[in-house]
Amino acid sequence: MSNWADYADRLTLQARKASRQLAIVTGEQKQRWLHRSAELLMQHVEQIVEANKRDLQAAPGYGLNAAAVDRLTLTPARLQTIANALGEVSALPDPVGEIFESTVRPNGLLVTRVRVPLGVVFFIYESRPNVTIDAASLCLKSGNAVILRGGKEALHSNVALYQLLRQALVETGLPEHAVQLVETTEREVVGELLKRGDRIDVTIPRGGKSLIERVANEARMPVIKHFDGICHVYVDESADHQMALAILKNSKCQRPGVCNAAECLLIHQAIAEQFLPKVGLLLQQEGVEVRGCEQTRRSIPAAKLATRQDYQTEYLDLILSVKVVEDLSAAIEHIDEFSSHHTEVIITNDLKAANRFTAEVDSAAVMVNASTRFNDGGEFGLGAEIGISTDKFHARGPCGLRELTSYKWVAHGAGQIRS
Amino acid sequence: MSNWADYADRLTLQARKASRQLAIVTGEQKQRWLHRSAELLMQHVEQIVEANKRDLQAAPGYGLNAAAVDRLTLTPARLQTIANALGEVSALPDPVGEIFESTVRPNGLLVTRVRVPLGVVFFIYESRPNVTIDAASLCLKSGNAVILRGGKEALHSNVALYQLLRQALVETGLPEHAVQLVETTEREVVGELLKRGDRIDVTIPRGGKSLIERVANEARMPVIKHFDGICHVYVDESADHQMALAILKNSKCQRPGVCNAAECLLIHQAIAEQFLPKVGLLLQQEGVEVRGCEQTRRSIPAAKLATRQDYQTEYLDLILSVKVVEDLSAAIEHIDEFSSHHTEVIITNDLKAANRFTAEVDSAAVMVNASTRFNDGGEFGLGAEIGISTDKFHARGPCGLRELTSYKWVAHGAGQIRS
Repeated sequence: MSNWADYADRLTLQARKASRQLAIVTGEQKQRWLHRSAELLMQHVEQIVEANKRDLQAAPGYGLNAAAVDRLTLTPARLQTIANALGEVSALPDPVGEIFESTVRPNGLLVTRVRVPLGVVFFIYESRPNVTIDAASLCLKSGNAVILRGGKEALHSNVALYQLLRQALVETGLPEHAVQLVETTEREVVGELLKRGDRIDVTIPRGGKSLIERVANEARMPVIKHFDGICHVYVDESADHQMALAILKNSKCQRPGVCNAAECLLIHQAIAEQFLPKVGLLLQQEGVEVRGCEQTRRSIPAAKLATRQDYQTEYLDLILSVKVVEDLSAAIEHIDEFSSHHTEVIITNDLKAANRFTAEVDSAAVMVNASTRFNDGGEFGLGAEIGISTDKFHARGPCGLRELTSYKWVAHGAGQIRS
Repeated sequence: MSNWADYADRLTLQARKASRQLAIVTGEQKQRWLHRSAELLMQHVEQIVEANKRDLQAAPGYGLNAAAVDRLTLTPARLQTIANALGEVSALPDPVGEIFESTVRPNGLLVTRVRVPLGVVFFIYESRPNVTIDAASLCLKSGNAVILRGGKEALHSNVALYQLLRQALVETGLPEHAVQLVETTEREVVGELLKRGDRIDVTIPRGGKSLIERVANEARMPVIKHFDGICHVYVDESADHQMALAILKNSKCQRPGVCNAAECLLIHQAIAEQFLPKVGLLLQQEGVEVRGCEQTRRSIPAAKLATRQDYQTEYLDLILSVKVVEDLSAAIEHIDEFSSHHTEVIITNDLKAANRFTAEVDSAAVMVNASTRFNDGGEFGLGAEIGISTDKFHARGPCGLRELTSYKWVAHGAGQIRS
């Protein structure tokens, strides 16, 4: 136990020191690191793939399913994609130092708000080695030191990648502890790190609900949480049916295993009789299991009866709950009760309905006539994201470089005193 | 115990419901409430002063000192000031609904960020009845429901004020539970409320360090903390001495009991011999006790020797610690070690020194050639503030209306799907 406390102590102290240096390096220095990291990745493809093989061999022992094994797998082509992503982060504007607000006060004092790094980020994530590179690049580009804790199933891959990132730090003259990897799968280390609210400025957990709940409970520092995506598509009375079907298909089927996939379809009762059979046909073609209300089942005979539990479930699979609602108000009430406040969509041609939906639905992203799948840092124009926050505090929805920053007030005077 | 849990349950459920309604009321409705509250205050001056007298009579029993009794006291003139403040909040722009960012993506999707209320604010504050009105007005203007928990010494005053705020809510058609007061001094209620992370979006504690630490430890929701102000004035080699003395006097003496008063003076060694006697004279005239380093004591014979403890202390009194430092780097290092990261000031005529100071000092407010006393919502142009955050997360420095908001992503499409 005490060993892990010491280990957490060392990692966080090193991160703290690195973060102070990082806060004042130039954007150019950070870009050199990103480019050198990409070069080193491409020069060490073989070693990385070897390390990854060790993880893949152990994967069945961890009980990983095919999708998880796929996410764990690194190939030369995928490493090229990862290296390219480093170049893309490099091309993004540096958020640090941006003056995003300024006023001259009547007494002549120039008051500005200047973007600064948060400091030290503790990032906990699933067994996807590409995320190691993504997270490190976003944290460092935003001037933060980061402590990475990837899923245990990816440890060998992560160590191999991390060694290169660290080599690039040393070669480009950045603090070598700007990026650190927790090089053990011991769970107690996480508990020790979560106690260090004095040295870690924010913890960002990604992964299963139980992990996020554990982190939120134990953390002695702010947490950016990423809970479920129980996302809704509501088809209003005035909706274009073809548009609604296309958006539903894209929202549910394009990538059912991700958080911004739709899990529930709500339909205005005035169009239910006409629209439901089209939905039934579409979902049958796409192999989607339907769990619906009584009226849904009358139009889609294959549908099972949805329970209350169904409306509370993030399926992450080719399953959709369907409910006919009396009107827009009933749709908003259903969303208020069952949504995880991640992403909700209305399909409508009625301006008043669109306005009410966007004003009253309290979710990270609320969209009119577009797929739920757009709630994503890249799609929203952030360039890249470290996660999608379901919190309302500090950052909501996709978190890119800016969401990894804070600000300070910088004021310039000429001897002003307060009267 | 269970009674207090039930009470907390009821308050938070009512606040939650009120916050959903509040999020969509117009700015005009909120203004009507602010104006009606001001009217009711002025119509009930006598009753309020009566209630305040009961608190003042009990004050000696609570061991309040003269300054605390002064802060507790309400007079007709002070009530007029409080009513005027409601008018000033009414005149501020409504932050809710502001689109503060928008982009059109290549596929035509219009992506915007829209400011929305945080939801439910739990505000814990010292025994200053004027804060009851300030906090309620800022929370409501920013669309938040608020649960107020004032200091026990002000309970009668707070109840009297709260009843008028509530009357104004009912009269202007706003949810009556938009503002609620914890009408008991029982400490257990606070503990119960701090557990309700599912219903309270943020807790803002103001007051002594032990209170804030207790809240930070127990809260199951985000907290905006307002810790000490151990603020520094650093006089650089190139400083204008007259300016430095004027800023020092204002920073230390104008209102020594507040968080943005200076507690420590740092002086570049190159000017120490010349500058220190002037400092000694000024501080003697102002009745400020000096606790300094060895060199300070050679120039200011009345100075006591400063201990490490002195440099860690927020005196909130006419006491100043003074230290001669080798150079700008040493000043920054001292601040890094001892500051509470609230407000630091450099007095200099050297552009490079000013730039290094503002870049490297990591405090909520960093100022060049101006008094520490300017770190204040009103002085920085926010109009009013609910506190000054020493956190880096979500809000830093003065917290006005905007800092009481979050945002949501609202996207408008015409049938876009993700490819």
